[in-house]
Amino acid sequence: MDATDTLEFDGKRYLGGPASDPNVLGWMQGTPPAAERRVTFAGDRFFAFPEIRWSLSHMRELVPTANVWRGETAASPLGQPSPADAAAIDALPFTDMNGQPRRWDAALHDTYTDGIVVLHRGKRIYERYFGALQAHVPHSCFSITKSYACTLAAALVHEGVLDETRLVPHYLPEMQGTAYANATLRQVMDMQIGVAYSELYSDPKAQIWDYSRAGGLRPRPAGYSGAQNFYEYLQTLRPEGEHGQAFAYKTVNTELLCWVMKRVTGVALADMLSQRIWAPLGCEQDGYLTVDPIGVPMGGGGLNAALRDMARFGELMRCDGAWGGRQLLPAAVVADIRGGADPAKFAKAGYTLLPGYSYRSMWWVTHNEHGAFEGRGIHGQRLYVAPKAELVVARFASHPVAASAANDPLTLPALLALGRMLGAA
Amino acid sequence: MDATDTLEFDGKRYLGGPASDPNVLGWMQGTPPAAERRVTFAGDRFFAFPEIRWSLSHMRELVPTANVWRGETAASPLGQPSPADAAAIDALPFTDMNGQPRRWDAALHDTYTDGIVVLHRGKRIYERYFGALQAHVPHSCFSITKSYACTLAAALVHEGVLDETRLVPHYLPEMQGTAYANATLRQVMDMQIGVAYSELYSDPKAQIWDYSRAGGLRPRPAGYSGAQNFYEYLQTLRPEGEHGQAFAYKTVNTELLCWVMKRVTGVALADMLSQRIWAPLGCEQDGYLTVDPIGVPMGGGGLNAALRDMARFGELMRCDGAWGGRQLLPAAVVADIRGGADPAKFAKAGYTLLPGYSYRSMWWVTHNEHGAFEGRGIHGQRLYVAPKAELVVARFASHPVAASAANDPLTLPALLALGRMLGAA
Repeated sequence: MDATDTLEFDGKRYLGGPASDPNVLGWMQGTPPAAERRVTFAGDRFFAFPEIRWSLSHMRELVPTANVWRGETAASPLGQPSPADAAAIDALPFTDMNGQPRRWDAALHDTYTDGIVVLHRGKRIYERYFGALQAHVPHSCFSITKSYACTLAAALVHEGVLDETRLVPHYLPEMQGTAYANATLRQVMDMQIGVAYSELYSDPKAQIWDYSRAGGLRPRPAGYSGAQNFYEYLQTLRPEGEHGQAFAYKTVNTELLCWVMKRVTGVALADMLSQRIWAPLGCEQDGYLTVDPIGVPMGGGGLNAALRDMARFGELMRCDGAWGGRQLLPAAVVADIRGGADPAKFAKAGYTLLPGYSYRSMWWVTHNEHGAFEGRGIHGQRLYVAPKAELVVARFASHPVAASAANDPLTLPALLALGRMLGAA
Repeated sequence: MDATDTLEFDGKRYLGGPASDPNVLGWMQGTPPAAERRVTFAGDRFFAFPEIRWSLSHMRELVPTANVWRGETAASPLGQPSPADAAAIDALPFTDMNGQPRRWDAALHDTYTDGIVVLHRGKRIYERYFGALQAHVPHSCFSITKSYACTLAAALVHEGVLDETRLVPHYLPEMQGTAYANATLRQVMDMQIGVAYSELYSDPKAQIWDYSRAGGLRPRPAGYSGAQNFYEYLQTLRPEGEHGQAFAYKTVNTELLCWVMKRVTGVALADMLSQRIWAPLGCEQDGYLTVDPIGVPMGGGGLNAALRDMARFGELMRCDGAWGGRQLLPAAVVADIRGGADPAKFAKAGYTLLPGYSYRSMWWVTHNEHGAFEGRGIHGQRLYVAPKAELVVARFASHPVAASAANDPLTLPALLALGRMLGAA
C-alpha cells in the first residue's frame, strides 16, 4: 500500500488512514484506557479526528439507541468474493478529480475507509475491513439514514398512507407558525425547503449543532436552556426564502418527515425499518438508531448498520424493490427515485463536484452513464447503486472532514471506474 | 386471572401487575408521548414504579450499551410448549409463604412478571410475555449479570488464568490502600468482603447510588464531583469488618472482579460473554451490557438478555457446563457452584426468607430438595436451576420493590411446587 502518512484537507494536515487506525493509536485500549486515549461522550471529542475512527463503530457505547431487529429469518446469501475478483479490484487504476493516477486499494486508505463491500449482480465480489470495524459490527450510516427513511416515506405515499401534496401542518399542527407551515410533504422529501438553518459542519455555530444538542447527541453546556428533544427543536425553525425553488440540504427536513411518519402510522422508525427492510431482506445483524432524550430515533442520521446489511439495501434498490421473489418496495417508488429530480434546482446548491446531479426522496442521483444514485453520509459513508453496471458499493469511513467534498475527488472516479470495469467484464 | 388491582408491600400500595402494564398506562405512547407519560434518563424516574415496567425492556434506549454478539450460528432449538403442558402449569396450585393458596398464573401477575420460560429436560414447556416485553427483546437481568460474570471468572480460575488465592492488589495495584488490599479473589467471588458500602435499595443515601452515578446509570446532580466511572469509584471503598467471616451482598465485589478479569485477559466482558456463552450456546438474540462513561460494561448488574437466551444459560448450568456435545464450562466449576458454600456464613446476612441457603461464585444456592441454585436480580429477575427436577425457570419482572424479599414469598413456593409436579410426572 502506498497510502501516505499524512493528508491535507482545506489547508490542514491529518494523520493518514493506516496511521490513524484506532488500534494502532490505542484508542480505548487498556483497563482502564489511559486518560488521553479515552473516547467519551462528555469530552465531546467523539466526533473529532482521530477519535472518530473509533467512535463510528461504537456509537451505541456513547449514546442511547433503539434496536432495529433483524427478525427471525436466516441471513440471505450474498456469495463469497473470489481472490481473483478481489485482486482485480484492488489493482483497479483510476484518475482522481485532480488528475492524479490512483489505485483502488491505496485510495481506500486515503478515504479513511473502515469497511467496503462490492456486490455485482447481487454477488459479493469484494469486501474489506479496517481499524475498529468488523463484519458483524454496526457502523454509523449518518445521512444514508435519510435514504432509508425517505424511501419508506415514499412507499407510504404510494400506499396512500401519506399524501405528498399536503402541507406539513395537516399532519403536524404543531408546525403551524414555523418554516414548514406552507411546505408540502414532497418539498420536504426533496429538501426544497426555505428554512433558516445551516448544515455547515465546519462552523461550530451552525444550527446542525443545536439540533444535535436537542437530540442528546452532543453534550449540553451547563445551564443549557435550548430545545429538549428533536420535536421541540423542529418547532423553533423559521422561514428563510421560498420552498420549491432550490435543493438545500438540511437534516431537519428528514427529522420532520420521520415525525410525520410516526404520527400517522404510530410505528417507530426503528420498528418500521425492522418490519419493512431488515427482516424481509434477511439482514444478518440487528441495526440500531440513536435516540433523543424522549426516545425518538434520529431519522436524520442516527442509523447504524452492519456493512453487508447496508449493501443488501442497495441491492434491493438496484433490483427495483424486489427481493427473493417478493416486492418489498413498490417498483414505482424505486423508479421515481432513479429518475431523479430537476438538476437545475440541484445546481443552485453549488456542489461543484457534483455536476448534473439531482436529489430525489433523499437520494443523490448522479444521472451518470451507469444511472447511479447514492446515499451519502458525512465522514465518508456511501451507498452507491449503479443499475446499468449491475453494481452496488457500500462503504463506511471515518474521514477527518465531515463534508463529502473531501472524499468525492477520490470516491466518485473510483466508483465510475469500477462500474466500467464490471460493465466490460 | 384473579390478580388483584393493587398490592401492598412494606406498608405501601402499588398498582397490581395487569393494572400497571405499561401498554395499558400508555407509557411512551404518542408522537411525542405526553409529558406525564415519558420515561427519560434525566427525570431519574426510570427505575421508579410504574415507569420501571417500561424501562426494564428498554434499557438501551436510556443509557449507552455494549453489544453481546450472538455470533454466526443458528439459534439452538428449545422445542415448543404444548397447550396441555402450559395449561397444567398455569393451573398449578401452591401455598405462599404466608399460608395463602395461590395459582401459578395469577402469581405471575402478582410478581409483576414481564416474561417467563420453563425448560424441563431442556425442552421449553411454558412461555409467557406481558407488558413491554417480547420474546426477541432483551430485558434487564440486573444481578443475574453477577452469576454470568462470576461463572466466567471461576472458569478462568479453573484454566489457571486467575489464581483465586491471590490478593486483589496482585492484579490491581490501584486497589492497594482500599478495602480490598487484603482480600483474596475467592473472598470477592463469594462476597465475603468487609467493605463500607450499603446495598439497601430503599435508602436513597446507600452507596449503591453513588456507584450507579459513577457508572453513569443515574443522573448526576449539577456540580457533581464524585467518581467519574466504576474503576474510580472502586478505589474509594474503605474497609469495614473482616473478610471471610460472613456473606455480605455488595455489587461492587462483582465490578471489582470484572476489572480483574479485564485487566488479566484484555477481553471486555461483553466480548467474553459473546465468545464463551452467547455464540457457543446458540443464543437467538444479541444481548447487551450497560456501560459506564469510559465504556466499561457494568459487570455488577448491566446485562440485558432475551428471556430464552437466559434460559439457555440456565440449561447449560443444569447440564454441568455441557451443550450439544461440547463442554463450554468446566464441569468442575459447575459442580463447585452447585455444591454451594458455608450456610453458616450465609446465615449471618439475615435473609430470613432464605433459610439454609449459601452463596458461591455469585450464585444463590438453595440446598433444597431439587438441589436448586439461583441467579437473582432486583425487581424480580430470576434464573432458577433445579437439577434434581431437571428444571430451569427464567423470569423477568418489573416489581415495584427492588428487594427479592418482596417476591420470594410467592416465587420460591411456586418454583418448588413446579419442581415437584415435574418430578412426579
